[in-house]
Amino acid sequence: MLNVHLVPHSHDDVGWLKTVDQYYYGGETGIQRAGVQYILDSVIPQLYADPAKRFIYVEVAFFYRWWKQQSDRTKKVVTQLVNEGRLEFVNGGWCMNDEATTHYNPIIDQMTLGFQFLNDTFGECARPRVAWHIDPFGHSREQASLFAQMGFDGFFFGRLDYQDKKDRENRREMEQVWRASANLAKPNADLFTGVLPNGYNPPSRLCWDVLCTDDPIKDDKGMEEYNVDEIVSYFIQIAHRQQSNGSDVNVFYSTPSCYLYQLNKANLTWSVKSDDFFPYADGAHMFWTGYFTSRPALKRYERLSNNFLQVCNQLEVLADSAANSGPYGVGDSSVLKRAMGVAQHHDAVSGTEKQHVADDYGKMLAKGWEACEVLVSNALSALSGMKQNYIFCNKLNISVCPRVEELGKFTVTLYNPLARSVDVYVRIPVNGSDYSVADPRGSSVLKEVVPVSDFTKAVREDRGYALNELVFPVRVPALGFSTYSVSRKSASSVLSKLVRSVKRHQNQGQNQLAIENEYIQVLFDADTGLMKEIENRQKNFSLPVNQNFHWYVASSGDQKSSQASGAYIFRPEQQTPFPMAKSVKTYTVQTDLFQEVYQNFTSWCSQVIRLYKNQKFVELEWTVGPIPVGDHIGKEVISRFDTPLKTDGIFYTDSNGREILRRRRDYRPTWKLNQTEPVAGNYYPVNTRIYMKDGKIQLTILTDRSQGGSSIKDGSLELMVHRRLLFDDNRGVGEALSEPGYDGKGLVVRGKHLIFLDTVDASADLHRPQAQAEYMAPWIIMSEGSGTPYSTQLNHLSEFSALKQDLPHNLHLLTLARWDSQSFLIRLEHQFEIGESSVYSKPVTVDLANVFSAFEITSIEEMSLGVNQRKADESRLIWETGRESQGVKSASHGGDNSEHTVVLNPMEIRTFRVHIQHR
Amino acid sequence: MLNVHLVPHSHDDVGWLKTVDQYYYGGETGIQRAGVQYILDSVIPQLYADPAKRFIYVEVAFFYRWWKQQSDRTKKVVTQLVNEGRLEFVNGGWCMNDEATTHYNPIIDQMTLGFQFLNDTFGECARPRVAWHIDPFGHSREQASLFAQMGFDGFFFGRLDYQDKKDRENRREMEQVWRASANLAKPNADLFTGVLPNGYNPPSRLCWDVLCTDDPIKDDKGMEEYNVDEIVSYFIQIAHRQQSNGSDVNVFYSTPSCYLYQLNKANLTWSVKSDDFFPYADGAHMFWTGYFTSRPALKRYERLSNNFLQVCNQLEVLADSAANSGPYGVGDSSVLKRAMGVAQHHDAVSGTEKQHVADDYGKMLAKGWEACEVLVSNALSALSGMKQNYIFCNKLNISVCPRVEELGKFTVTLYNPLARSVDVYVRIPVNGSDYSVADPRGSSVLKEVVPVSDFTKAVREDRGYALNELVFPVRVPALGFSTYSVSRKSASSVLSKLVRSVKRHQNQGQNQLAIENEYIQVLFDADTGLMKEIENRQKNFSLPVNQNFHWYVASSGDQKSSQASGAYIFRPEQQTPFPMAKSVKTYTVQTDLFQEVYQNFTSWCSQVIRLYKNQKFVELEWTVGPIPVGDHIGKEVISRFDTPLKTDGIFYTDSNGREILRRRRDYRPTWKLNQTEPVAGNYYPVNTRIYMKDGKIQLTILTDRSQGGSSIKDGSLELMVHRRLLFDDNRGVGEALSEPGYDGKGLVVRGKHLIFLDTVDASADLHRPQAQAEYMAPWIIMSEGSGTPYSTQLNHLSEFSALKQDLPHNLHLLTLARWDSQSFLIRLEHQFEIGESSVYSKPVTVDLANVFSAFEITSIEEMSLGVNQRKADESRLIWETGRESQGVKSASHGGDNSEHTVVLNPMEIRTFRVHIQHR
Repeated sequence: MLNVHLVPHSHDDVGWLKTVDQYYYGGETGIQRAGVQYILDSVIPQLYADPAKRFIYVEVAFFYRWWKQQSDRTKKVVTQLVNEGRLEFVNGGWCMNDEATTHYNPIIDQMTLGFQFLNDTFGECARPRVAWHIDPFGHSREQASLFAQMGFDGFFFGRLDYQDKKDRENRREMEQVWRASANLAKPNADLFTGVLPNGYNPPSRLCWDVLCTDDPIKDDKGMEEYNVDEIVSYFIQIAHRQQSNGSDVNVFYSTPSCYLYQLNKANLTWSVKSDDFFPYADGAHMFWTGYFTSRPALKRYERLSNNFLQVCNQLEVLADSAANSGPYGVGDSSVLKRAMGVAQHHDAVSGTEKQHVADDYGKMLAKGWEACEVLVSNALSALSGMKQNYIFCNKLNISVCPRVEELGKFTVTLYNPLARSVDVYVRIPVNGSDYSVADPRGSSVLKEVVPVSDFTKAVREDRGYALNELVFPVRVPALGFSTYSVSRKSASSVLSKLVRSVKRHQNQGQNQLAIENEYIQVLFDADTGLMKEIENRQKNFSLPVNQNFHWYVASSGDQKSSQASGAYIFRPEQQTPFPMAKSVKTYTVQTDLFQEVYQNFTSWCSQVIRLYKNQKFVELEWTVGPIPVGDHIGKEVISRFDTPLKTDGIFYTDSNGREILRRRRDYRPTWKLNQTEPVAGNYYPVNTRIYMKDGKIQLTILTDRSQGGSSIKDGSLELMVHRRLLFDDNRGVGEALSEPGYDGKGLVVRGKHLIFLDTVDASADLHRPQAQAEYMAPWIIMSEGSGTPYSTQLNHLSEFSALKQDLPHNLHLLTLARWDSQSFLIRLEHQFEIGESSVYSKPVTVDLANVFSAFEITSIEEMSLGVNQRKADESRLIWETGRESQGVKSASHGGDNSEHTVVLNPMEIRTFRVHIQHR
Repeated sequence: MLNVHLVPHSHDDVGWLKTVDQYYYGGETGIQRAGVQYILDSVIPQLYADPAKRFIYVEVAFFYRWWKQQSDRTKKVVTQLVNEGRLEFVNGGWCMNDEATTHYNPIIDQMTLGFQFLNDTFGECARPRVAWHIDPFGHSREQASLFAQMGFDGFFFGRLDYQDKKDRENRREMEQVWRASANLAKPNADLFTGVLPNGYNPPSRLCWDVLCTDDPIKDDKGMEEYNVDEIVSYFIQIAHRQQSNGSDVNVFYSTPSCYLYQLNKANLTWSVKSDDFFPYADGAHMFWTGYFTSRPALKRYERLSNNFLQVCNQLEVLADSAANSGPYGVGDSSVLKRAMGVAQHHDAVSGTEKQHVADDYGKMLAKGWEACEVLVSNALSALSGMKQNYIFCNKLNISVCPRVEELGKFTVTLYNPLARSVDVYVRIPVNGSDYSVADPRGSSVLKEVVPVSDFTKAVREDRGYALNELVFPVRVPALGFSTYSVSRKSASSVLSKLVRSVKRHQNQGQNQLAIENEYIQVLFDADTGLMKEIENRQKNFSLPVNQNFHWYVASSGDQKSSQASGAYIFRPEQQTPFPMAKSVKTYTVQTDLFQEVYQNFTSWCSQVIRLYKNQKFVELEWTVGPIPVGDHIGKEVISRFDTPLKTDGIFYTDSNGREILRRRRDYRPTWKLNQTEPVAGNYYPVNTRIYMKDGKIQLTILTDRSQGGSSIKDGSLELMVHRRLLFDDNRGVGEALSEPGYDGKGLVVRGKHLIFLDTVDASADLHRPQAQAEYMAPWIIMSEGSGTPYSTQLNHLSEFSALKQDLPHNLHLLTLARWDSQSFLIRLEHQFEIGESSVYSKPVTVDLANVFSAFEITSIEEMSLGVNQRKADESRLIWETGRESQGVKSASHGGDNSEHTVVLNPMEIRTFRVHIQHR
C-alpha cells in the first residue's frame, strides 16, 4: 500500500497584510479574507464530531488568544482532542519565525514562550514533536540546530531554491538529515528535514481553502456536476506521481509526527547536509535577498527590544516580586515577551509586511517597553534602595531626550545584562556646555561636551533641541548597575569650550587626515575625504580600506523578467552600483576621549567614523535617508569596504548570530549553481557579522541589526543598509517598500558598523564578545537627580552586581528569567566555535552554585533548550545516516562534579530550570 | 424598553451568478464566494451550542438537499432545534419566488412542494408562519393573496419604490395590512405586510457576512482595536433611529414570527393597502421593468413546463402506479416538480441570472420533461391499453420533429388537462403533400397541408427538414385524451396541391388585404402590409388597430444617470421607439381551415397573423431575433397596438395570471408619483394578459409567457417581446443580457399574442377560459402508428375522459396530483372576478363526488392552499384595520349539503386532500 498522509494544518500569519489583531478577529476583509478565530471555532467541532480527523495547529500567539476566550466546556473538549492526538501542535512557537533576519536569542525565547503556554495548558501531550516552517523564505542552519536542541524529531519546510528543489526531486532527496552545527556533538544538532512537495499548498486542483477557487467535491450522484470519481482518480494519480512505490493508495488524516514516526520505522538510510538553504530563489531573477535588509529601522528596533527584554527579564529575577509591584506601578515582562514573540514572525522582522502592519509591530513593541520600563524602575528602586524619577531616553541615537536636556543635575544608571563587566561610553544630549560627572564611588570622571552635529540636527528635526552632547566613559559590573551623577557647571561659556575640541578639517592644504587611538589609526584620503586605510597599531600592520556608500538601481522589471525589486526580492537593474559620492565634505572632532571624522556624502547620506579611547574597533555611524525617489528610481543603498585582500571568492557570514558559515561567490555546496543574478544571487543574511580574510589578516564588520551582505568581488565586503522601492515585487504584500518615516517624507535610518582589523587568529577573541556586548548592551536609565530612599531598611546602592565574579570570556549568560511563580531559567552558552580561538575555543566549566551573589540556587534541573522537557527525558528519533558512525550524546554533563558544575563545549547552550533563594 | 429583534436569516439564491449545484457545494468561487452547505453546516452547531440563538431558513430547495446528506445524529439535533423554535423555517417554499414574471399555478406548486418537505420531515412545528420575500424586485398583489390563503400571519419584504419607501418612512407606514384581493371575502386575502428597513441588509457597519468588509467586534480589552463600547453605542443609536418610542434597548435573537406575535399583541390599528408594489425603482432612472421580459425563451419554456407538469401530475393520478412503473421505465413527476420549483426563483424565470445559470435552469427543466415523458408514456399505455412507440415532439413551434416527418402512418394523441373539452388545431411537420386523418371514432377529419414558411425554415436551420405542415382540428375531452390517426396518401403531387391553397399577395394592384372567419375579419393596409383594423363580425363593429413592431434604443447611461438598460432595468435612451418597418412584405395563405398573412418586417422580425376557423381570437405568431447589435446599440423590441380607443391613461394587467389590476399612466395609487421615466416607469408585468377599453369596447391581448407591457399613450398597448443589451446594469449579475441562442449568433424567440376584440361585458367570458386553455394546453404525443396491446385484459381506448362531464365554464381544475402514497390533491378555482361576467361571476357549486369518472373519492379533507394545514385548523393572527368592520371567514363551505358539495365564490381556490378508489 502507498500510504497517503493528509495533514490539515493552520497557516495563520502572525501579521502580514493585516495586523495580528485584524487577523485574529477577521477584520479588514477588504485587504484579505482571513480570521483566525473562525478557523479554530470551526475546526474544533469538526474534530470533535469525527474521530478520524486530525488538525495541526502551529501559531501559539493566536491559539493562546483564542483559548482565553473559550468556555470551560470548549476547553475540556479541546484538551480531550489534544490528549487523543486529534489536535496536535506542531512547531509550537509563539509564531513561525523568520530565519534570515532573526537573532538566535529571540528565536529561543519565542519558541520557549509558545512551548510554555502549551505545557502549562495541556501538559506533555501537547509537546510539539515536529518543527514546521512551511513559509519562511529560506532556511538557516542555526535554526535547524536550535530545533534539534529543542528536541524536535524532524523538520518540514516549504521553500528552497528552485534549482535545488528540482535537483532534489530528480535525485529523490527531498528528505535528508541536516547536520546543523559544525560544533555540537553528533547527533545533537542533527535534524531530519523534509521538503514539502508543494510548499504550503495542496496539490493543484485540491485546494478548498477560502483563498482558493478549486471545484468542491460534489458527492450527490443525482446532480449534473457530480465529480467524486474524477477527483478520486486524480488524487490516486498524483499520489503515485509523488511516490512511485506502493501499489494501492491508503489515505488517512494524519499529522507530521505520525508521518515521521512511520518513516522512522522504515529504517532507511538518509543522506546528510551541512550547509544552509540561503539564498532562496523561485526563479532566475527572483532572489529573495531584499528582505535581509527591508525595513532597517524595524530590524534595529527589534534587536534593541530584545536587549531591553533581557534587561527586563534579569531584573525581574534579581528584584523578584518587587519588580512586578512597586512604586512605579505594575511591572510586567510578559507584554514585551509576547511582542517580541510576534516580532519574530516571518513577515515581521523580515520587513515583508504592509506598512500599517509594520507600524503595529512597532506599537506592540513600544507597549512592551512601557511595561518593562515600569518593571525596571521598580527593580532598580528595590535594588538601589532609592526611589527616583526615572527617565527612559529612547531616542539617544538621535541625541533627543527633552526631559534630561534642561536638567542641571541628573543621574545616569547603566544596567549591564552581560555576565562580565563592560566599559562603554555614554552620550547624553544636554544644553549646558560644561558638566562634572562622578562615578558610583564619587570620583570625578573624564568627560567631553561636544556640539550636536548638523547631521543629527537634520534627522531629529523638532523632536529635541539639545545643543551639545555630554560624553563620558562608564564601567558597569557584570549583571548589575552603576549610577553616575552629572551636574552642570554654572555659567561656563558654550562657545569657548567647544571650539577648543573641534577642528574643522580643510580638504585643501593638508595631505593627511587621520584619527587614532591606542589600538587603531584610520587614514582618510585628503582629496576625497573617504576612508582609505586602517592600521592595527598594536600588531603594526595596515590594510588599505576604501569605504564608500553606493546604491543599486532597483529593477522595475525588464525584458528578461518582469520581476521588480521589492520587499522580498532584491534585483538590481545593473550589477554595478553607483557610488554615493566621489568625494565628501568632512570635518573632524578630536577630544581626549574620542576622535571623529564627519563625512557628508549627500544631503541624505552621512557618516561619522569614530574611535573611542581604549576601543579596539572603528565605529562607523551611518545615517541614510530619506532616499530620494523623485527621479522615479528605486534605490538600494550599500556600505562597501574595498581592500586588496586576496579572498578567492570566499567570505563569511553568521547564522542567526551564532555559528559562522563560509560563503563562496557564485557557488552552492550541494548543487551546481547556474548563477543568473551576480549580485542578488550572492547575497546572504548577516545577522551580526560578516568578514573576509586572507591567510593572515581578517577584516570583520559587526552590524547592529540584520542586513543583507556579500562580497561581490575579492577583497570587498558590502552590507545593504537601506532600500526604498517603487514597485511591489508580486509576492503578495501588494505594496512597494517605501517607508514614510517619522514625517512622511521617507524613512531616515541610522546605524553602526563596527570594524575590526586583526589577525585571523585573534579576530574571534574580539568579535565574539563584542557581538554579545552589542546585542546585550548596558541599558541607560536617567533620573532627575538625587531621589528619595525607597525604604529605610535598604542600603542605598549606586553600584551593584548579581555575580560573584565575571564569567569566563567564552561563557555567555544567554538567559536569566523568571519561569513561573517558583522557578527561574538560566541559559549558559559557550560563545566560541571550535578552532576560532586558541584560548577560548575550549570547553569551559562553571560551578553554578558559585556564580550568583544575589541569590542562592537551591535546586537545579537541566531542560531541553525550549524548556518543555527535562534534558534527561529527551529521546529523539534516531535517523540512520549510513557510513558515518552515529555519535553519542554530548558528554557535557559534568557528571563527576556536583550537579551545579556545568561544562560547556564550543557553541553549546545549556538550559536550567532552578529554584533560588534571594539573599 | 425598546425591543430589538435580531433575525439571523438565510438568503440563499436558488441560482443566480452560479447554478444551484454550484451554490450548494460552494464551487466556482471565482464567480462568488457562496456555499450553502457550509452555511447550514456551521449554523446548526452554533444554534445547538447556544439556546439563545435563532436562525431562520428560507429556501427548501437547498435545505432538502442538505438534509439528505446528514447523519441520523445531525437530523436528530436539527429536529430538536426546529421543535424548540430555534431553527425556524420562514416562507418555506422551494425557493423565494419572483413575483413579476411568475404564474400563480407554479407559485402555488412551489410553495406546496417546500411545505410538503417541511411537514413530512418535521411536522407541524416546522410550518412557516411568515412569508419572507426580502429580495424579489417588486411585489404582486396576487402573491400576497396566495400567501394569505396559505395561512401566513404576515409578510416581510425588502424592495419597494424608493419614493414609496421614503414616503412610508416619513408617514411611519412601513407596516400595514395588505388587502390582496378585490374578490375574496375579508380577511381571507388580508396580509400583514412589513417593509424591512434596510432591505436584506443589516444596518450599515454591522454586516459580518462573508460578503461584507465591516470591522468585526473585537472584544479583547487588551488589544489596540477593542471596539465593543463603540459598536454597542452605535447599535443603540440606530435602534432608536428606527423606532422612536422605548427608552432603553433590549436586544435578543428572534425570528419574524416572534416579532409578529409581539406586534400583534400590541393591538394597534393598521392602515390598509389594496394596490401592488410594481414597478420597483431604486432611483430616478432605475426602473426594474426590464426583467419583466428578460430571457423570453426561458420564460416561455417555464410556462410550457408548467403545462407539462400539470399533464404529468394528472396522469400520475389517473393511471396510478402504472404511471410510475411501466413499459417505458420509471416515470417520475418529482424531477419536474423540483425543477419547476427552482425555476420560480427570483433570479430564474425573472431572467436576471448569468447565461450559464439560465442554461442550467433549462437543463433541469429538460430533465424533468424526460422523467415526465416516461410517466406520460406509461400512463397513456395503461389508460389506452396500447403500448406505442411514443414520440414527444418538443419543437413543434418551429415545425421540427424529425422522427415524425418521414412517417407514412402515425397517431397523434392529445391529452387535455382542462376540466372541459377543448377544440384546437394541431400542426405537424411532414414531408408528404397529402394525408388522411381519422378521429378516434375513425371518421375522416378535415385537414390541410401547407408548406413550411421561409420564416420557420430560417429559424429552425438544420434541426429539421419537413417541407410541409399538416394542419387539422381536434377535439379533446375534459381531463382525457383523443387519438387521431394519420396516413400519407400515396404519390400525390406536392406542388399541385399546395399552389391551390396559397395565394401570394401582391402589394400593388389590390386595395384591400384581409383574412376572416365566422367571427372576425382582420384588414391590412394594402400599401404597408400592416394590420389596420379588426372587425367583430358577430357584433358588427370594427376598431382600427394598427400593429407594428418597434424597438427602443437601450440606454448605455447618459449625463442624467450612468444607469444602463440591463437584465433587470429597462431604460430607453429616447422615449419614442423606432418602428421596425414602415411597410412589410406580406403573403397570404388561405385554406378552408385557416387564413394567414405572413409579414416580413426585417431579416430578424416576422409575424404570421392567423385566423382559424371557429376561433374567436386573432393569433399573432411573432418571430424576433437574432436582434442585431453590430451597430453597438442594444435594442428592446415591442409589439404595439395603436387604436383610437379613448382610454384616459387607463389600462389593465393581470397579477400572476389571476386578478386584474387597473393601471394608470404616470400614477401610483398610494403616493404622489414624480415620474422620471415616461416609458420604463409605466411598465408593468403582464403574465397572461393586458387590455384596454373605452365605455364599450375592449381590446384584450393574451400572452403565452410573462412580458413587460404598458400603454404609453391613450388607445395604445405595447408588449416587450425581446431585448438584447450590451451593458450590465450594475445590479450584480455582471453580464450584459445578450443571449447567444441556439447557434451563438443571438437568440431567436417565437411566440404568440392572442387578440380579442369584443364588448367590455363579453370580454372576460372569452379571455378567462382562453388564458386557462393556453397555460394548460392539450399535450401532443405522437406515435409511430398502430401499437401493440399493453395487456389483453384492457380495452383499447382511443378516447378517454376522467370526468363524468365538463366542469362549469367558470370552474377551473387547478390541481389534480398525487400527494403521497395514500392521498391525492384536488384544487378547484373559480376563474372569474366579481363583475367580470354577467353569467360567470357568480358562485359556482360542484359536487366533487359527481365529477370524476375515473375514480371515486372515498374521503375528503379541505386544506389550506399550501396543503400544510387543515382548513379547519387555520387560525391566522387578526390585525385591526380601524373603521372597517372585520369580515367573517368566507362562508364558501357548502355546509348544508354533503361534504362533497363545494361552493366557490369568484376567484376562490379551494384545496382538498382526498382519498380515492380507482374504477
